[in-house]
Amino acid sequence: MSLALPSTTALLMMECQKGVLDASGKFAALANRAAEKGMLAAIARILAASRDTGRTVVHCLSVARPDRGGRRQNAPLLRLSFEGLTIGSRRAEVMDELAPVEGDFTVGRLHGVSPFHDTELDAILRSRDVTTVIATGVSLNVGVTGLVIEAVNRGYEVVLPTDAVAAAPAEYEAAQLKFGLRALATLTTADEVCAVLRASKGSL
Amino acid sequence: MSLALPSTTALLMMECQKGVLDASGKFAALANRAAEKGMLAAIARILAASRDTGRTVVHCLSVARPDRGGRRQNAPLLRLSFEGLTIGSRRAEVMDELAPVEGDFTVGRLHGVSPFHDTELDAILRSRDVTTVIATGVSLNVGVTGLVIEAVNRGYEVVLPTDAVAAAPAEYEAAQLKFGLRALATLTTADEVCAVLRASKGSL
Amino acid sequence: MSLALPSTTALLMMECQKGVLDASGKFAALANRAAEKGMLAAIARILAASRDTGRTVVHCLSVARPDRGGRRQNAPLLRLSFEGLTIGSRRAEVMDELAPVEGDFTVGRLHGVSPFHDTELDAILRSRDVTTVIATGVSLNVGVTGLVIEAVNRGYEVVLPTDAVAAAPAEYEAAQLKFGLRALATLTTADEVCAVLRASKGSL
Amino acid sequence: MSLALPSTTALLMMECQKGVLDASGKFAALANRAAEKGMLAAIARILAASRDTGRTVVHCLSVARPDRGGRRQNAPLLRLSFEGLTIGSRRAEVMDELAPVEGDFTVGRLHGVSPFHDTELDAILRSRDVTTVIATGVSLNVGVTGLVIEAVNRGYEVVLPTDAVAAAPAEYEAAQLKFGLRALATLTTADEVCAVLRASKGSL
Repeated sequence: MSLALPSTTALLMMECQKGVLDASGKFAALANRAAEKGMLAAIARILAASRDTGRTVVHCLSVARPDRGGRRQNAPLLRLSFEGLTIGSRRAEVMDELAPVEGDFTVGRLHGVSPFHDTELDAILRSRDVTTVIATGVSLNVGVTGLVIEAVNRGYEVVLPTDAVAAAPAEYEAAQLKFGLRALATLTTADEVCAVLRASKGSL
Repeated sequence: MSLALPSTTALLMMECQKGVLDASGKFAALANRAAEKGMLAAIARILAASRDTGRTVVHCLSVARPDRGGRRQNAPLLRLSFEGLTIGSRRAEVMDELAPVEGDFTVGRLHGVSPFHDTELDAILRSRDVTTVIATGVSLNVGVTGLVIEAVNRGYEVVLPTDAVAAAPAEYEAAQLKFGLRALATLTTADEVCAVLRASKGSL
Repeated sequence: MSLALPSTTALLMMECQKGVLDASGKFAALANRAAEKGMLAAIARILAASRDTGRTVVHCLSVARPDRGGRRQNAPLLRLSFEGLTIGSRRAEVMDELAPVEGDFTVGRLHGVSPFHDTELDAILRSRDVTTVIATGVSLNVGVTGLVIEAVNRGYEVVLPTDAVAAAPAEYEAAQLKFGLRALATLTTADEVCAVLRASKGSL
Repeated sequence: MSLALPSTTALLMMECQKGVLDASGKFAALANRAAEKGMLAAIARILAASRDTGRTVVHCLSVARPDRGGRRQNAPLLRLSFEGLTIGSRRAEVMDELAPVEGDFTVGRLHGVSPFHDTELDAILRSRDVTTVIATGVSLNVGVTGLVIEAVNRGYEVVLPTDAVAAAPAEYEAAQLKFGLRALATLTTADEVCAVLRASKGSL
């Protein structure tokens, strides 16, 4: 097995929030695609393996203040008048299957569309000497793609279990993996990630 | 006409370099797709309009030291054993159609896959009070997508003339525009960009 | 009066926290110096003028998780075994004189020694089109000096009311202002800042 | 001997340029202080030991375009009308004692006052797995202080040989070391650094 997941591997879960993965909301197509492929169950298996073996776990969240302060509306996605992921609301919460526990990190951001830029995510990973990240969550349309590019720019190896991410529609998801992300990350599956994680311990 | 290109608009050209747009090289499919759609001619028209009206112009380049110093090989794309875009070599040069002139900015980077992270690009744009960037060049597979995400994260409005960018294959290019970048940028054409640029002056 | 404080001015208050300005704690000399010069009262006047005129207000805080996660101990200051500014504890709170109200921003950071690096501070300021920051708080020994350098690097004008900052000992405070910060910021007083703020409205 | 300089140590030399260390220029007091204490000779010894043992060497330079493009004049230091460190000019060159050789890195920046922010310095260090930096050069008034703060924020250990840095006047230099930088870096001497460097090899 050639997949390398050293003790210094971290699991990143991108915007697995109730207001995002909401089949009746603005991102219904994405929510349906994630449900169809069993994305949450795949992430949950990786999360369990990561916690069991002492890896760093980070929930990367999009959040909003009630007054929308800190959120510049400089892109169509950021101008969406959806009922925002307001801090403290049910919609901002992580999906129950992946609910944070003590020891996890949660990095909420008010601004932008991807998780590294001007947040503490990189500092958290550096504080644990993390060298490899497992990219999971939604969506390959924007946020997870941004996560992968930002992680590569910062020197991390990226592992991407294709059943633990989603985009809508499904045809675009396949194309984005094949023609975009394959150049940046090692594509694999949740089961392979779990097997490799469980074969060694983390560095905590 | 609703397209807004204030005096504080900058033109960003991503990796329009001889070693990238080389129909006999590692990225032949991309070079062929760019040729097929007339990408360079479209960018050249925008470049002329930008210079004529005093807008900021930036060439965003990938470059390499002969010893590859500063380049971490932490992704498949960065591990490619292609004959690199070595500083001073013909392959690192900008395509003749877009050759830099005095007053242009050139931002070369040794590391990573997109142009903003830990380069002076943002500082250059801030020094001119730039608020809007025109994203052009290659490729939508990775680099231009990264550019757009990074620009949105930093608060810029992004305008993307679809005939002035390319990805391979063409079907993926169309999908990436429709399902990815449309959420982040205003999609338009080179001709419309030129018309709006020429209707007003830059702030230099 | 030559001091310029446009509508797009923000007040930054650095680490005015109970566990920092604690005359019985590790930073007693600093707390005593701040008390001696009436620093908190000076900041409180600027804070009132900032709020009254609709300026952006940001509390820049150092915080810690109970498990110290995210805090790399890579400097003597970061290795201090003081009773940390644990999230949720009294020591992490802002001093009562400056207590946050609705509409203020609070930017806590787990890592490092200054407030801009890999936090949302810059994004918050950009979302309000802030161009000028008023630097206040503690300490000129490290944190406020870092704040000023980081703000200049990011293109902001910095205004520094010398009675609204502190360092220990007092002789070093004077030297740091005269030989270091005078090259980076406009030195002034809290009263002058208040007068100029009250002469115009903010941009909120 | 408790000083730790692992194979992954890099030498950073801040603005040791002819236009900065010019006894007839705007920074004459600084140039004289550096001469008085033999700063260049101390750095030259560390540079030789770093090269001999395969450590990463970086020249951190302030440079300017003839049209001053990319330089925002948002601080007194950046508004100085000194004959700038124009790219290609003698004044922008590194002092002869420390002249770059093949294998060294040179990071020029157009903007700001310290070397890490939005330059490739961090990416270069990460590409070599650098964990510790030796901070040298000028000045402790602004630039080297900024370098140290930025390095600590990014997770590096900082070693500062006090005879290989300078500030003006000398009394401020002593105070800045004692009350500011001692909290952030391990203070030592050039001779001790050389001895420890020579006791082990670098990681190149």
